[in-house]
Amino acid sequence: MPRMSAEELERFLYSHFPDSAHRAFRVERVDEMFAQVRLCYHERHLRPGGTISGPSLMMLSDTAMYMALLGMIGPVALAVTTNLNINFLRKPERADVIAECKLLKLGKRLAVGEVTMYSEGDPEPVAHATLTYSIPPEPTMNEAIEDSATGKSD
Amino acid sequence: MPRMSAEELERFLYSHFPDSAHRAFRVERVDEMFAQVRLCYHERHLRPGGTISGPSLMMLSDTAMYMALLGMIGPVALAVTTNLNINFLRKPERADVIAECKLLKLGKRLAVGEVTMYSEGDPEPVAHATLTYSIPPEPTMNEAIEDSATGKSD
Amino acid sequence: MPRMSAEELERFLYSHFPDSAHRAFRVERVDEMFAQVRLCYHERHLRPGGTISGPSLMMLSDTAMYMALLGMIGPVALAVTTNLNINFLRKPERADVIAECKLLKLGKRLAVGEVTMYSEGDPEPVAHATLTYSIPPEPTMNEAIEDSATGKSD
Amino acid sequence: MPRMSAEELERFLYSHFPDSAHRAFRVERVDEMFAQVRLCYHERHLRPGGTISGPSLMMLSDTAMYMALLGMIGPVALAVTTNLNINFLRKPERADVIAECKLLKLGKRLAVGEVTMYSEGDPEPVAHATLTYSIPPEPTMNEAIEDSATGKSD
Repeated sequence: MPRMSAEELERFLYSHFPDSAHRAFRVERVDEMFAQVRLCYHERHLRPGGTISGPSLMMLSDTAMYMALLGMIGPVALAVTTNLNINFLRKPERADVIAECKLLKLGKRLAVGEVTMYSEGDPEPVAHATLTYSIPPEPTMNEAIEDSATGKSD
Repeated sequence: MPRMSAEELERFLYSHFPDSAHRAFRVERVDEMFAQVRLCYHERHLRPGGTISGPSLMMLSDTAMYMALLGMIGPVALAVTTNLNINFLRKPERADVIAECKLLKLGKRLAVGEVTMYSEGDPEPVAHATLTYSIPPEPTMNEAIEDSATGKSD
Repeated sequence: MPRMSAEELERFLYSHFPDSAHRAFRVERVDEMFAQVRLCYHERHLRPGGTISGPSLMMLSDTAMYMALLGMIGPVALAVTTNLNINFLRKPERADVIAECKLLKLGKRLAVGEVTMYSEGDPEPVAHATLTYSIPPEPTMNEAIEDSATGKSD
Repeated sequence: MPRMSAEELERFLYSHFPDSAHRAFRVERVDEMFAQVRLCYHERHLRPGGTISGPSLMMLSDTAMYMALLGMIGPVALAVTTNLNINFLRKPERADVIAECKLLKLGKRLAVGEVTMYSEGDPEPVAHATLTYSIPPEPTMNEAIEDSATGKSD
C-alpha cells in the first residue's frame, strides 16, 4: 500500500517546487507502485502549432515518476533523477495530457519506472518515458563530514 | 490483425538469421501490435554466476520487437534497429526468460515498442527495453541508383 | 560548412519559439556538425537548493541539437525530436551552463547528436544527452493531400 | 592514473568471462577515465549481409565501459550494467570495430560512460552508446546477512 495519498503527494510537490510547471499538474491517483498525473492544457505549455511542447512532456513524466516513488517510500525530497529516456510518438491534441507511471523496480538505491502519456480521450500514446531515480542512502557520520567538506556527492 | 502467425514469424527469423542465439528463441504469440518471445534457458546464455547475460537479454528484446513489427507489416527483412534503451532490473532466475513486446507506434518510417522481460514463474520483471526501428521506404528510381553507386544509406 | 551563422540561428530560434526558456539561450558557436549554446543563469531555472533544474538542462540539450542540425540543413522548422536520453551527472554550479553538441549522424531522415553540458568554469560535465531528430521528407503530392485530410503524421 | 594496465584488464576479462564474444576483444589502451577496445572482425559477429551485428556492438560497448571502469577502481567483478542506450548510426564495414569509452562520471555508487564505435579506417562512427554501471557498496554486516538470507540485491 502507498504511504502517501494523492492529495498528500500533490501538496508535497507544490510545497517543494512552488512554481512547478505553473501549477498545472494534478496528482489523480496513487496505488501500489503506480501514479497517475494530469497536465492541464494551457497556452503556456504549447509549442508553435498549438501542441504541448516536448519539455512539458518531459516534466510530466518526471513528476509522475517522482509521485509514484514518493508514494512508496514517503516524502524523501532528495531522491533525484539520474536517467531519463523519452520517445515522442505523436503530436498531442489540444487537450490535457494524462501520464501513467508504473514502477518496474524499487531497490534500496535505485528505482526504475516507465511512464505512458495520453491526450485525454485518445487511446494512442503521445509519448513514453523510462526513468531512473537515485535514492539517497542514510549517510554514515564519516561520509556526511566528507561530503560537506568537499561539496561532492554521488 | 497481424499479417503473419507466430509460426511464420519464427520460420522467417531462422531463415534470415540461421544461428540467431543458437536457435534458443521461440515465438509464442503474436497479436495486434504485440509479440511474446521466449528465450530457452541454456548454459550458453549464462554469465559467470549462472544468470542470463545482459547481451542475451538485449538480443531477446530486439527479437521480440522485430517479431511484433513484422507481424504488423509483413516480412520486411530490411527494417533495422536504430535505438535501443535497456534497464537491467533484477538478476534473472535459472529459467527461461519471456519477453512481451507492445508496439507504441507504427508509422510509415519509424516504429517504437517497449519490451518487458520476466523469468518464467516470477512476476517481477528482470529487464525492460524500449526500441526504435527504421522502416525502409520504397526507394524512388533515382535514390536506388544513387545508393548503389555510393553504398550509403540513411 | 554550416549554412547558418550563430546569429542567424539564434534569431530563427526566437522567431519560432518566442518564449523559449524565457530567452535565456545564447547560440555561441556553430561549426561543421557542431553547435555550442549557453543557458544564462537565472532564478527561473532553479530547483529548490539553488541548482539548475533537470527540465532546464533537457531544454538546453534539445536546443543545442536543434541549432547544430539547422546549422547544417538550414531553417527547417518541422524537424522534431523523436528520442532524448539524458544522464544527470553532477549538481550544477550557480553559474551559466554551456552545452556542446556534436552531430554523430546526419542522414536524409534521421539525425543523431550527443550533447555534453558543463557549468561555466568547471571541466567536469553536469549532464550528457543523446538525441534523435526526424527530418521531414519532401512530401509527394498524394501524401500531402492525405496528411492534410487526416491530420496525421509519422 | 589507471590502477590496471591494458594487459591486466584483458587477462581479467577472459578469466571471468572465458567465452566472451569468442575471445574477439582486445583491450588496446587504458588511460585516465578512458579505455579503447577492439572487436576483431570475424564471421561469427556478422548478420546477414556481412555487417557486424547489433548485439556484437552492444557487447563491445559494454566491454569498453567495463574496462574503463575497472581501470579506475580495480578488479571489482561485481560492478553491473544497469542502463545501456545505443544508437546505431551506419552499416559497419567488413573490418574490425574500435570502441573508445570515456567515463563521464565516477561516483561511489554509479559510473556513467559514453562509447563511440568506428570501423577501422573510417572516421564516421557506426554506433554510439551511453552506459551506467552500479558499483556495489561494501555491505554492512547486517545487510550481508540479510542479502544471503533473501537472495535479493539492489
